[in-house]
Amino acid sequence: MDDLKELHEECGVFGVFQHPSAAKLCYYGLHALQHRGQEGAGILVANDHKLSIHKGEGLVTEVFNSEKINQMNGIHAIGHVRYSTAGGGGIMNVQPLLFRTMAGDMGICHNGNIVNANVLKEKLEEQGSIFSSSSDTEILGHLIKRAKGHMIDRICMALEQLDGAFAFLILLEDRLYAVRDRYGLRPLAIGQLPNGAYVFASETCALDIVGAKFLRDVEPGEIVRVKGNQLLSRLYTKQPIHDKICAMEYVYFSRPDSILDGINVHTTRKNAGKQLYLESPVDADIVIGVPDSSISAAIGYSEASHIPYEMGLTKNKYVGRTFIQPTQELRDQGVRMKLSAVSSIVNQKRVIMIDDSIVRGTTSRRIIKLLKEAGAIEVHVRIASPAIKYPCFYGVDTSTLDELISHKMTTQELCEYIGADSLAFISEEGLKKSIHFKKEHTCDLCMACFNKQYVTPLYDNDFQDD
Amino acid sequence: MDDLKELHEECGVFGVFQHPSAAKLCYYGLHALQHRGQEGAGILVANDHKLSIHKGEGLVTEVFNSEKINQMNGIHAIGHVRYSTAGGGGIMNVQPLLFRTMAGDMGICHNGNIVNANVLKEKLEEQGSIFSSSSDTEILGHLIKRAKGHMIDRICMALEQLDGAFAFLILLEDRLYAVRDRYGLRPLAIGQLPNGAYVFASETCALDIVGAKFLRDVEPGEIVRVKGNQLLSRLYTKQPIHDKICAMEYVYFSRPDSILDGINVHTTRKNAGKQLYLESPVDADIVIGVPDSSISAAIGYSEASHIPYEMGLTKNKYVGRTFIQPTQELRDQGVRMKLSAVSSIVNQKRVIMIDDSIVRGTTSRRIIKLLKEAGAIEVHVRIASPAIKYPCFYGVDTSTLDELISHKMTTQELCEYIGADSLAFISEEGLKKSIHFKKEHTCDLCMACFNKQYVTPLYDNDFQDD
Amino acid sequence: MDDLKELHEECGVFGVFQHPSAAKLCYYGLHALQHRGQEGAGILVANDHKLSIHKGEGLVTEVFNSEKINQMNGIHAIGHVRYSTAGGGGIMNVQPLLFRTMAGDMGICHNGNIVNANVLKEKLEEQGSIFSSSSDTEILGHLIKRAKGHMIDRICMALEQLDGAFAFLILLEDRLYAVRDRYGLRPLAIGQLPNGAYVFASETCALDIVGAKFLRDVEPGEIVRVKGNQLLSRLYTKQPIHDKICAMEYVYFSRPDSILDGINVHTTRKNAGKQLYLESPVDADIVIGVPDSSISAAIGYSEASHIPYEMGLTKNKYVGRTFIQPTQELRDQGVRMKLSAVSSIVNQKRVIMIDDSIVRGTTSRRIIKLLKEAGAIEVHVRIASPAIKYPCFYGVDTSTLDELISHKMTTQELCEYIGADSLAFISEEGLKKSIHFKKEHTCDLCMACFNKQYVTPLYDNDFQDD
Amino acid sequence: MDDLKELHEECGVFGVFQHPSAAKLCYYGLHALQHRGQEGAGILVANDHKLSIHKGEGLVTEVFNSEKINQMNGIHAIGHVRYSTAGGGGIMNVQPLLFRTMAGDMGICHNGNIVNANVLKEKLEEQGSIFSSSSDTEILGHLIKRAKGHMIDRICMALEQLDGAFAFLILLEDRLYAVRDRYGLRPLAIGQLPNGAYVFASETCALDIVGAKFLRDVEPGEIVRVKGNQLLSRLYTKQPIHDKICAMEYVYFSRPDSILDGINVHTTRKNAGKQLYLESPVDADIVIGVPDSSISAAIGYSEASHIPYEMGLTKNKYVGRTFIQPTQELRDQGVRMKLSAVSSIVNQKRVIMIDDSIVRGTTSRRIIKLLKEAGAIEVHVRIASPAIKYPCFYGVDTSTLDELISHKMTTQELCEYIGADSLAFISEEGLKKSIHFKKEHTCDLCMACFNKQYVTPLYDNDFQDD
Repeated sequence: MDDLKELHEECGVFGVFQHPSAAKLCYYGLHALQHRGQEGAGILVANDHKLSIHKGEGLVTEVFNSEKINQMNGIHAIGHVRYSTAGGGGIMNVQPLLFRTMAGDMGICHNGNIVNANVLKEKLEEQGSIFSSSSDTEILGHLIKRAKGHMIDRICMALEQLDGAFAFLILLEDRLYAVRDRYGLRPLAIGQLPNGAYVFASETCALDIVGAKFLRDVEPGEIVRVKGNQLLSRLYTKQPIHDKICAMEYVYFSRPDSILDGINVHTTRKNAGKQLYLESPVDADIVIGVPDSSISAAIGYSEASHIPYEMGLTKNKYVGRTFIQPTQELRDQGVRMKLSAVSSIVNQKRVIMIDDSIVRGTTSRRIIKLLKEAGAIEVHVRIASPAIKYPCFYGVDTSTLDELISHKMTTQELCEYIGADSLAFISEEGLKKSIHFKKEHTCDLCMACFNKQYVTPLYDNDFQDD
Repeated sequence: MDDLKELHEECGVFGVFQHPSAAKLCYYGLHALQHRGQEGAGILVANDHKLSIHKGEGLVTEVFNSEKINQMNGIHAIGHVRYSTAGGGGIMNVQPLLFRTMAGDMGICHNGNIVNANVLKEKLEEQGSIFSSSSDTEILGHLIKRAKGHMIDRICMALEQLDGAFAFLILLEDRLYAVRDRYGLRPLAIGQLPNGAYVFASETCALDIVGAKFLRDVEPGEIVRVKGNQLLSRLYTKQPIHDKICAMEYVYFSRPDSILDGINVHTTRKNAGKQLYLESPVDADIVIGVPDSSISAAIGYSEASHIPYEMGLTKNKYVGRTFIQPTQELRDQGVRMKLSAVSSIVNQKRVIMIDDSIVRGTTSRRIIKLLKEAGAIEVHVRIASPAIKYPCFYGVDTSTLDELISHKMTTQELCEYIGADSLAFISEEGLKKSIHFKKEHTCDLCMACFNKQYVTPLYDNDFQDD
Repeated sequence: MDDLKELHEECGVFGVFQHPSAAKLCYYGLHALQHRGQEGAGILVANDHKLSIHKGEGLVTEVFNSEKINQMNGIHAIGHVRYSTAGGGGIMNVQPLLFRTMAGDMGICHNGNIVNANVLKEKLEEQGSIFSSSSDTEILGHLIKRAKGHMIDRICMALEQLDGAFAFLILLEDRLYAVRDRYGLRPLAIGQLPNGAYVFASETCALDIVGAKFLRDVEPGEIVRVKGNQLLSRLYTKQPIHDKICAMEYVYFSRPDSILDGINVHTTRKNAGKQLYLESPVDADIVIGVPDSSISAAIGYSEASHIPYEMGLTKNKYVGRTFIQPTQELRDQGVRMKLSAVSSIVNQKRVIMIDDSIVRGTTSRRIIKLLKEAGAIEVHVRIASPAIKYPCFYGVDTSTLDELISHKMTTQELCEYIGADSLAFISEEGLKKSIHFKKEHTCDLCMACFNKQYVTPLYDNDFQDD
Repeated sequence: MDDLKELHEECGVFGVFQHPSAAKLCYYGLHALQHRGQEGAGILVANDHKLSIHKGEGLVTEVFNSEKINQMNGIHAIGHVRYSTAGGGGIMNVQPLLFRTMAGDMGICHNGNIVNANVLKEKLEEQGSIFSSSSDTEILGHLIKRAKGHMIDRICMALEQLDGAFAFLILLEDRLYAVRDRYGLRPLAIGQLPNGAYVFASETCALDIVGAKFLRDVEPGEIVRVKGNQLLSRLYTKQPIHDKICAMEYVYFSRPDSILDGINVHTTRKNAGKQLYLESPVDADIVIGVPDSSISAAIGYSEASHIPYEMGLTKNKYVGRTFIQPTQELRDQGVRMKLSAVSSIVNQKRVIMIDDSIVRGTTSRRIIKLLKEAGAIEVHVRIASPAIKYPCFYGVDTSTLDELISHKMTTQELCEYIGADSLAFISEEGLKKSIHFKKEHTCDLCMACFNKQYVTPLYDNDFQDD
């Protein structure tokens, strides 16, 4: 399948504690997070002394219907939407994971990626553990199980062994834990419903949808526990804490209406568009954006340059899972799904095309071809993120090194490859400025995929960079 | 169900003649027209001397799957997407309609509304006709059946009796007819595939998707016949012909990337936004649009006013048919689907909100409430169409007179009702200018819903206007 | 698809008048009639002055769900299950048919076949009628529409023009008509619910399921009208009336627990089994029946012969529409669905195999092969109906003349062809005796498929018999 | 839901080794075993060095479609159909279970129940194990993981710790193990396909369906390994071995065409019917059976008594999961699904009703009421199994002690309770004789549910019997 997008966030999590319609709120919340994972969804509810779960492959609306949701009685719930990486699919890997122990049930869901998963897994297997999934999330369950003491101590001991990117929600029959890795790589926000119930979500847009007020983010290295109606917080780690949220959350993954770390995503994108103009101006007739995620940046570029923003590309919004894909033969005959160039707008125009990122370059190449066939006389490409040169090990499914076109080509070579008349990426500094426009500190973003400065050791995830 | 939109186009049609994958192309074309009708879809193919049909209630992707499409062998096809008006639903009314006669089969699909339907129906029933559907499209089948002579003459005689709005596609085993009413109220474009095959579609966006080149529009009062590889054209009527395409096609119904009557829809909307600023400027901090159809106008207003365009409202794009709607209780608790106000953007801001139209006023009221709750200190509403004061009888499901808020209230009263700080509609002249920006003639739009100047007699569709 | 059965009844009808759960009862009734047609189902309800309908392709449980049924408010309902003959499928032919007229709506459903359909259709088309379906049922709607006078007179005038086999239910907003052709070829029973409501069904098993008491059969040539709580009856025809119900209803189509014309179907089958023994005894070890419809006859044969009845063949009851059929390759490798021979029972046994009929012979041949492979040393076939030598024009989908193996082969040749050790059919006299065991008259069965004595002219349905 | 049946087998397993269409054959095999579990199904295939799985809730035909099956490439497969006991449902418990280890994947499926599950689970948890399901099958995975040595030794060591009833299939990438508990409580047969591939199934009917030849049963206490094309066998236990297959497999669970322990199930049921007559004759007009499982016994009773067998009860075969159940109100009005009494057969008759078992008595009571309402003047009930007085801990979902009506009532009391004119159960000796008619040994059946002679200790499954 030729998807438009070549980058994939791996997950979104949502939790609600102490609400009579917990499963329903979870359903709505996951809905708002659907863009973070469309291949599987699950909800786990706690009721009395039992956890029960329903999950499946597909969109939230495909996995759940009213009947299912109404059966899910419970006053606490956690849920998950999943993007399943190639080969790692299947229902066993859809989250939340549910562990049954004689001492009570425990459910876990996870956004992120554990970099020392294999090391830990090997050790656990040696000690007799056995795994039901290929997901690295299961490791946390085993580590908690094997730790001793009070539950919160056991969880902290377990977390202390993990390295990498994570936002976890852990549900027991009568309490909910929310944690974030000590770099804050993956986002996790805390909100509160009108009835006082606490809500947790990967993005604030999921708080908005359920009518929850945003309280604050879970901090890097923090574990938050809700029990009864009390929220208790502590640091779970003695290791140093760095605030290094993933820059791509702003650039591409998060919904424009979400607020990450106090900053609205749409605004950072518009800023990036303006910054792009300052860094790489070009004379042209119109500015267009690649829908949907690059529209904000395009508007920013247009505002800064006073070159009018136009809708030169349109996306067919009804193309979904059940859509019959055209055969190659039909594609060769010109059948184009998903994205069309609007000839009446781009014809005879010099076009500035704003996109959020370039991964393999094939999509950009295709779009530029569309634009030129539609009559564009020049296509100047401006990218609202720096060139992606290195793989991500923190929960983003970038391609391998070999597939990262910017790893192999200079900007000039790439410009030729995609058939653009000019090409420029925003600078790292420029991106930082766009995001931290109203803050003093300007160093707290993970930009490893641009500059190889990984925030953790890479363990056996290491790669050969020649 | 609380739908965002209060206006509904009734249909979209698509046809392809002489292509080995006719049904598949029809499927893609209907897909691009999905916004014109989401409650039913059907495709009819001609193969050898037989027409066969599949249709059902729901979206194109719900009614068809690969298996069904692959079974639909045939080199000609016509298809339809339907918005079914209240009470008139049911599979019997989903189109195309298929008539079996001893002389051969005939399929018809229709976008529009016949105003003298009841008069004709009564006459036909007196002559012994019997109707299987409540759709007025069936009338054409009966009239053709009862006419004498060559098929094209019979069709012309039948069409001559119809008054109202229509774009018809009529398929026989070896030919396809396309016609448009003599006012050109509903659009219908002709395109051509790389293999030479002719394609017809309500909007040009459906030509783009299948890789067809736009040739021209079917003209008001014209009948086009394709047979073999020949396209033959004639006028079917001796009555006067007026070019009066529905203004709401530009304002709201058509896709922004479509070209109607030579004019790109997005551009007319942006123009309308600019014009709105000229007519009703207001000092404010940001301009926002109600997604999706008002975004173009909002960008236009922003460009003209130099007030920045921001994404102050977001629409949850995954909310679909299978989505579990929140109960009233949950809604009262603040669970908001479909549309959210982005607090971080609108908080403490004076907001100009651009919308395409106001029908009953309840949606506007709700959105303004959302914005104010999110912290907007002023909300100035600017509407990119004139006030809708009269019902449409030409295929748009406006509400009844009583429900049209602008029929009952002055702009000032309405402004108070919806809770806005100011409210202005674009003028009729202004809208005309936005649409006909590059043409001399400025009078060829049906604006009956604004000004009561219906292009046809209303027959028994008349209404009491006190 | 290799279906077990080579004969198909074409339909079942069910109606209920004046019950608050009319649609639901109709659903249950159709369920009990599901064996009469598994390719389409529909229910039409009358509520206030409106008829509304839902129908679709598939089983009753596939076409309807609780939501659909609950939406179908109405106190009267008629419904239909359909077996669609090859090529004549599609949603347009699923019944009931609904006709919309200015004077009110009318719904019709039909079990049977009109032999003079083409003659009537041609005449109607000449008068300007146009048909939406290829079903001959639509003709009745047109004839009623064109007749004059009171509704009941119009219906009678219309019926008088039809020749062939029919059981019709006709629903208007406030009355229900039930009619049966003047030969009584197709069954139609009248029942009454505890609340006094009248119920109509093709078979009494559908009365049982809804808790209705059987009152009597609709008589050949009779029209029954229910209006308010009154049942009115009259003959609609002046032509002679013959009581000639289809013999195959007893032999194969009807459910064993149904009572046709006062006679329990299972009992007639058991009688036929006994009669078969009297006519064609054979020495053997066990008697087996081909499931499901031949079990009764096998038990009868066993009782008469004192040869034990055993379960030598089993049918896989879960094989349904959604079942993945084995490919030819797998079939060649021995994968057998639907029917298995039970080796531990038939091994080393002389087997008498009772079947209800032989149409093309291929199924019998296959089953005998299975039995022999499972170790049966002799297979003696006894058929509980006479040899089928002529096609049926009264609503049974027998194959064409050429496919009727008994038309082409003598019993001896057929015995060799199917690989049996002996083969005998029951005599016509024997079958009559089995059915009319407790009546004096023994001549009132249509046995045209055995003896070519068609009860009506055949019009253009005639066939060349050399 | 008021199900007809009050006893439930918990599972069926099927496996195939070394066949290009392994998943497909597994699908067919599970189909033939569908009666053993209708609430979940799964198939696991081994391909190269990877196991992959698909499973879900529902019937085999609901969980799998062609697309899914075709995706399941692999030459070895195991599959499972599951009856999920109350509360223990959910996708996590659907089998096969798949364990991922650094050393390779392992899949397990299980029919039966481990009686010392809690003891083992507690011990494993103490050692750090954590469970993903509430199924006792997962224990075996953990035990194997923790054992040392060659895989077969590890499996044997693990099995040696289990007590209870089990038939396991264990699949690794290149080998398949089949084991049966040392009492042989649950059946497991070995077959061979024409291509030489080995097949395993809970019942021989699943061998028949895929065209496999029955070789022999897996013996109590035996482990069989297939690798390459070699079948290796050994005893995994040093404990004593008893051949005590579950008597209810003959009475009710297994399909009549299956052969258990060399004995055809239908034949044992017919024998039981005959034996019932010898033990408890009664004068009456007809013998009827409660469909479907009691038909064989009814025929046996009829043959022995020379009282004719009639079809006095019919079951509606299309009633399935998607069927809309009648509301209580409709039920009160006489709407009867699933089972009807055939009035024309039982009216004015003295009826002997044969059933396979009585659990709670409510079904019998209901059926007898139906028969009497249909006119039966006497109903004599004969049960083809002894009275069930004790719960089963070996994989049969009998109700709790309190619900077992025969635990609380004498036969005489029960006769009155169900409204029968007489009631008799077959004796234990009589049932043994029916099953072991052609063998010398007559003691190898588990009849604990009749006589409390459990074949294993009960651990914490013990119950208070006052």
